[in-house]
Amino acid sequence: MKIVGLELGERSYPILIQNNLLTKITIHLKGHAPTEQAVIISDQSVSQLYGETVSSALKNAGIQTDLFIVPDGEDSKSWKTMGNLLTRCIQTGLKRDGLIIALGGGVIGDLAGFVAATYLRGVNFVQVPTSLLAQVDSSVGGKVGINHPMGKNLIGNFYQPKLVLIDPMTLTTLDKREMWAGMGEVVKYGLIWDEAFFKQVEDSLHTLIHLKDMEAVADMLAFCCRAKADVVEKDEKEGGLRRILNFGHTVGHALEAATDYHYFKHGEAVVHGMHWAAWVSRQEQFISESEFNQIESLLKQFAIPVLPDNLVAENLISRIKIDKKQTGKGLHVVLLEAIGKTKILKVEDMTPWVKAWLIYMQKK
Amino acid sequence: MKIVGLELGERSYPILIQNNLLTKITIHLKGHAPTEQAVIISDQSVSQLYGETVSSALKNAGIQTDLFIVPDGEDSKSWKTMGNLLTRCIQTGLKRDGLIIALGGGVIGDLAGFVAATYLRGVNFVQVPTSLLAQVDSSVGGKVGINHPMGKNLIGNFYQPKLVLIDPMTLTTLDKREMWAGMGEVVKYGLIWDEAFFKQVEDSLHTLIHLKDMEAVADMLAFCCRAKADVVEKDEKEGGLRRILNFGHTVGHALEAATDYHYFKHGEAVVHGMHWAAWVSRQEQFISESEFNQIESLLKQFAIPVLPDNLVAENLISRIKIDKKQTGKGLHVVLLEAIGKTKILKVEDMTPWVKAWLIYMQKK
Repeated sequence: MKIVGLELGERSYPILIQNNLLTKITIHLKGHAPTEQAVIISDQSVSQLYGETVSSALKNAGIQTDLFIVPDGEDSKSWKTMGNLLTRCIQTGLKRDGLIIALGGGVIGDLAGFVAATYLRGVNFVQVPTSLLAQVDSSVGGKVGINHPMGKNLIGNFYQPKLVLIDPMTLTTLDKREMWAGMGEVVKYGLIWDEAFFKQVEDSLHTLIHLKDMEAVADMLAFCCRAKADVVEKDEKEGGLRRILNFGHTVGHALEAATDYHYFKHGEAVVHGMHWAAWVSRQEQFISESEFNQIESLLKQFAIPVLPDNLVAENLISRIKIDKKQTGKGLHVVLLEAIGKTKILKVEDMTPWVKAWLIYMQKK
Repeated sequence: MKIVGLELGERSYPILIQNNLLTKITIHLKGHAPTEQAVIISDQSVSQLYGETVSSALKNAGIQTDLFIVPDGEDSKSWKTMGNLLTRCIQTGLKRDGLIIALGGGVIGDLAGFVAATYLRGVNFVQVPTSLLAQVDSSVGGKVGINHPMGKNLIGNFYQPKLVLIDPMTLTTLDKREMWAGMGEVVKYGLIWDEAFFKQVEDSLHTLIHLKDMEAVADMLAFCCRAKADVVEKDEKEGGLRRILNFGHTVGHALEAATDYHYFKHGEAVVHGMHWAAWVSRQEQFISESEFNQIESLLKQFAIPVLPDNLVAENLISRIKIDKKQTGKGLHVVLLEAIGKTKILKVEDMTPWVKAWLIYMQKK
């Protein structure tokens, strides 16, 4: 088993990575989140695959267990679904020493985590991420929340889980589109944090995507979790350093919003957003032509939707303005000064950089 | 000015108490919650009295200010109102370095605090409590949240303000029913924390209620805030000691719920709840007959509604069971072992103590 520790004082917790960990969940709960009562929150697809495995394991250990299932997809990260889940927790009588388990991808982790953070002012919470994106990114670090019609993740909390359980075998049932979307976040850690890791992913991209070497996959997951933990330990609530994790996300979020969250998956939009950031980094001469080409040629291998034909710059820009990262004093954009090293630039007006990039993309 | 400090590491903040502090709000914001953009959340009554004073003060200091007004009363602590306020924060473009100010009583503090805690995963928050209950209790300590049709305060966060500004002059416009309700929480500090303070309140109850000595009122407010701060400093998230602040609240909450939140004000229900707890403490022989008589005779002076005729024990008990303080292992009830000293009792079944007390009350 690989163990990544996230040190945050009394809010510290471990991330455990091991094949077939789902069946052994109760052993690990005992040490980190002991309880007699649990609510599992999952979606339709994941609960069909793993709901029975996890709830049986809990029930066999004598834990009173409910399984709440929400529809697949980003639309479940809504005020309405959140309200329904809180009502069901009350109805089932979940008590203060009860546990909420998120079993699913990033949507489920964010949603179930926000329910856990706000139900009775906070109950214990365990992340069991089943998508690549959730395993390398959203299940670690305590960002939980929901979307608003006017923007993503505008409502939420910082709320750390007691434990993150990653079973890489769940990736075998993940559809390939989700794998590619998650791989976008994997590449992100190479770009912002470690050039050697970027090169490893570059060298074995297809081996990893097709899960031909589960040991290498587990190493990749552990590296990403360690990188994210390093950042979060230094800046839990995104006062500074943590912003680098938003690399690719400013334009990524805007792309998702401008296409009504139905065209791109989050990780896919982030791949385009990272391309934008690398392109701007090149325009600003922060990175060399060959570095930009290296990044672009890796990202071009991603099997993701291209930018839609009807995308207009103004729409993207208005979405960026509403993005929560905008403080009163302009927008902080995460760029690169090398592969493996970020540079934060304060931009007063994003318009020129968005328009010029769209023109560049149309010409390709 | 009286200053009470609440020490919680990086979440520490001061409580400032001074007549006419409302007009000087911006001086104190500068030091503790500097901002260029603020949203004031208030209710109809309070905003009519003080909305203009506070928003003008902010605007004159160059702070972009919005005033969001919700209807008076407990019904505003709802999922729907919370959602509307979050939407208005998004629409007005409140940014991460913006500030939310709660201007009002306990309902406004709880509601605005929960909005601040969840908007963009948390923005700075300042409490300006204008009711006695909010000044001595709910504005201090970071409990924020809303009600659910199935129970009070079932949804929320622990989220500390950056500053609490108490202007005792706002009590001059508070109606007497609210004064009496708040005085219930004042007496609570005497009962659970300090016998000498209990006696002071006993001796000068009517002087305090009728605001005949504003210096004594300010002393009383400072004592209560200091007592609450002492408790919260030792146990921010109610793992143990903080439970004593729930003295009178188990039956109090149940009384509010059983009467659909429209018959009793919170503080009024707590007065009855404290009477219940004192009565049980006497039945269990934890306190003497004369101590019980002393408590009862003080509480009898409170100008609050009597228990309604149609109150049935079963209804109260079912409400208690849903109360969030119930852990999987029974209910922890806060009783007294002396005036000024609590004793926590784990009760498996509240039914006998509720039924017997109701019979006692009917006989009186």
